[in-house]
Amino acid sequence: MTEPNTYEEEPWEKISELTKSKDPSELQIFLDDLPLGEAAHVFSHLKKEEVLEVFDMLGPELSADLIEQLPEIQVAGIMDGLSPDKAASIVDQMPSDSQADLLGDLSKEHTEAILEKMDEEEAEHARSLMEYEEHSAGGLMIKEYLSYPVNLKVNDVFEDLRENDEEYSDYDVQYTYITDLEGKLIGVLRLRDLILSKKNQSVENIIIHNPLSIGVQTPLDELVAFFDGHNFIGVPVVDENQKLVGVVRRSAVEEASEEFATEQFLKVSGVVGGEELRSMPVGIRSYRRLSWLSVNIILNIVAASIIAFYQDTLEAVIVLAVFLPIISDMSGCSGNQAVAVSIRELTMNLVKPYEFMRVLLKELSVGLINGLVLGLLLGTVCFIWKGNVYLGLVVGGALALNTIVAVCIGGTIPLVLKRFGFDPALASGPILTTVTDMCGFLMVLGFANAFLSKLV
Amino acid sequence: MTEPNTYEEEPWEKISELTKSKDPSELQIFLDDLPLGEAAHVFSHLKKEEVLEVFDMLGPELSADLIEQLPEIQVAGIMDGLSPDKAASIVDQMPSDSQADLLGDLSKEHTEAILEKMDEEEAEHARSLMEYEEHSAGGLMIKEYLSYPVNLKVNDVFEDLRENDEEYSDYDVQYTYITDLEGKLIGVLRLRDLILSKKNQSVENIIIHNPLSIGVQTPLDELVAFFDGHNFIGVPVVDENQKLVGVVRRSAVEEASEEFATEQFLKVSGVVGGEELRSMPVGIRSYRRLSWLSVNIILNIVAASIIAFYQDTLEAVIVLAVFLPIISDMSGCSGNQAVAVSIRELTMNLVKPYEFMRVLLKELSVGLINGLVLGLLLGTVCFIWKGNVYLGLVVGGALALNTIVAVCIGGTIPLVLKRFGFDPALASGPILTTVTDMCGFLMVLGFANAFLSKLV
Repeated sequence: MTEPNTYEEEPWEKISELTKSKDPSELQIFLDDLPLGEAAHVFSHLKKEEVLEVFDMLGPELSADLIEQLPEIQVAGIMDGLSPDKAASIVDQMPSDSQADLLGDLSKEHTEAILEKMDEEEAEHARSLMEYEEHSAGGLMIKEYLSYPVNLKVNDVFEDLRENDEEYSDYDVQYTYITDLEGKLIGVLRLRDLILSKKNQSVENIIIHNPLSIGVQTPLDELVAFFDGHNFIGVPVVDENQKLVGVVRRSAVEEASEEFATEQFLKVSGVVGGEELRSMPVGIRSYRRLSWLSVNIILNIVAASIIAFYQDTLEAVIVLAVFLPIISDMSGCSGNQAVAVSIRELTMNLVKPYEFMRVLLKELSVGLINGLVLGLLLGTVCFIWKGNVYLGLVVGGALALNTIVAVCIGGTIPLVLKRFGFDPALASGPILTTVTDMCGFLMVLGFANAFLSKLV
Repeated sequence: MTEPNTYEEEPWEKISELTKSKDPSELQIFLDDLPLGEAAHVFSHLKKEEVLEVFDMLGPELSADLIEQLPEIQVAGIMDGLSPDKAASIVDQMPSDSQADLLGDLSKEHTEAILEKMDEEEAEHARSLMEYEEHSAGGLMIKEYLSYPVNLKVNDVFEDLRENDEEYSDYDVQYTYITDLEGKLIGVLRLRDLILSKKNQSVENIIIHNPLSIGVQTPLDELVAFFDGHNFIGVPVVDENQKLVGVVRRSAVEEASEEFATEQFLKVSGVVGGEELRSMPVGIRSYRRLSWLSVNIILNIVAASIIAFYQDTLEAVIVLAVFLPIISDMSGCSGNQAVAVSIRELTMNLVKPYEFMRVLLKELSVGLINGLVLGLLLGTVCFIWKGNVYLGLVVGGALALNTIVAVCIGGTIPLVLKRFGFDPALASGPILTTVTDMCGFLMVLGFANAFLSKLV
């Protein structure tokens, strides 16, 4: 009964076994046979030592292939555990934009150590890409593109394509870029035009002159707009001297947009300081979550101190204690909707950070309607429960007014934060809830205090 | 002084003027000169009638170009206002996957009316794409690809490329797909191989046989995994009989991922029933937001009713009313972090909906640490303020325990919802906060009740 039952064996158990048997080819076959998209899940079940052993067995090229299948954040954890030598041999096998992405996720020292062990030319490419803002044209571009000087003939290009067939097999050869002798971009040569031309034709006669290009500093939102407006697979990138320095592919821009949207989703939910995977050590997970929670608990204590000031009022009308958390939570909900709409409109470039008044007026109208409806609802519940119309008015009125406050603050705070260089996704939530909590508590208890004789 | 000051004129004012002057060519020049990414912002400032007038002036082809630059959700609003005739003439100019996307965003009746006015072949393509799940291979594929039967010679393909140069100019011709005479996919022909082959060579001899392909029902997460694992620009899509039906491009998959991430971000923030733009009518915006808020207020009232049951305890120890909103809010924060991590891990396929226990154990360890830290913090604040160690223990202990409850529920509820076919991004938040509110109120007030003699 020592034979394992293969029907019940999980794939990570099998991999763990295969690494022990030291048979790279069987391991490779097993990994290749994993169903589409399963690699990430399987690797999330392996212990760190097992993962490192897998990469030791596979060799650089197969390791690089495997790494391309795993999510970026998972890869960063793996690379951290590899020796610089081993890591460098794997990174050498990857395209330049993936290299820069991956190295950018590691610590500075580890990155430097890996770069030093890398192939010199590859390391230089990676270094030059890492100098740019991650989500700019420079950070997203690839170095693997074809460019030729303008003084060639059609046949010269054909010869080069034929000779370097192997090296170019991962390149997009549909478009090649034509530069003058100083490296300045002057045209695009379409493969289709190359095919349809005579061999002794000069390249200059068949290129498209003055092609569209983008500057190396172009930010992500403009890149998105560019590809929305142009049905291109890629666009050439030029430096401040109009020299061709890279190509940004449409798919890289769309991948970066996805990353950005995911980041926003995680940040508004309080996952900050980097993405969290459950396979990370519990210390890191706790620490990151606490860094957010500890700010929040302090803001919460500050907001709740309002209640302490009105202790006497609350003691006189104890039923209000039931409504305080409702008003706090509902104002937060209303405000967060407005925050999300503003963050989205800022991302889509539909609203500019300076358009404060425009957003305020738009939110005010929604706030009036929603405040009225929610206030009426809660006020009625309160009246039916306690039979005191003044109590209903205090509770309902406070929620109505605080809803208006919440949507106005929620709608505008992302604009203000963005304008002053802060991250709206990160800071809007805590600021919003603190202000609306204070304001809400103040209204309920202040109104109650004013009408105290009618409530008791 | 009737001359407008052009230095201060906003671009939407200029457009509004140009539509009045009925000069399409000037309007076109002005729109072309707008800086990259500005069209969306400018159009968000125009009144609906003005937008419709712009499209009336531009004609179908230029309208289609303009529409490609605007965000999908903005376009849906515009199309709704156009006559079916006008809308059909614009949609006719778009690629098939954009057609299906756009029509899918409109009401059924309007879509049907537009399809009837469209070019017959275009309409048929759009209809066939709309039959598939939006985020599956079928919903994402394009019909604009090149395929040839296997019995051709190299020269025949060249001839076809040359003859249809104009029509194919928007196609990706780097790869052409080769089918047998029944339309089944049997190979891929790379343009580079075509170029390097003799003209009288048979196509069959230079194709890559048994190319990778995907089924028409393949869901988005598998498509993402496919492109992660393969450095392809596109992949052919086959139906259940292995017949070639379309091509899914990498960029379409990445765009769909971005949409999905954005949808999740909006849903967890309570923006449901479709994306909201502030340019939409206030009635729709209020109604959509209220549909979410009204569910939440009822859940809130249910949760807060716990407090009503303990009114006497609360009256005896009124200071607890200060801590109830803090415990409610902090438990929500801790739980939402766990929700976000789970939703993210589900999307990345790092965790499966059935791995309940695995997630529970992982969250438990974080919950223990964070609960201890937060509980200690709040308990100490309470003790320092009131000088009663039992009060500190009740408040701190309740927060500590409720943090553990919150992260355990937050981590697992998305898995449970997904497993039973619900949308985790939509339902996790309200369920989480209701349960943790009830649980938190019950703990604070229950503990206080048990130690009542020590607290007063």
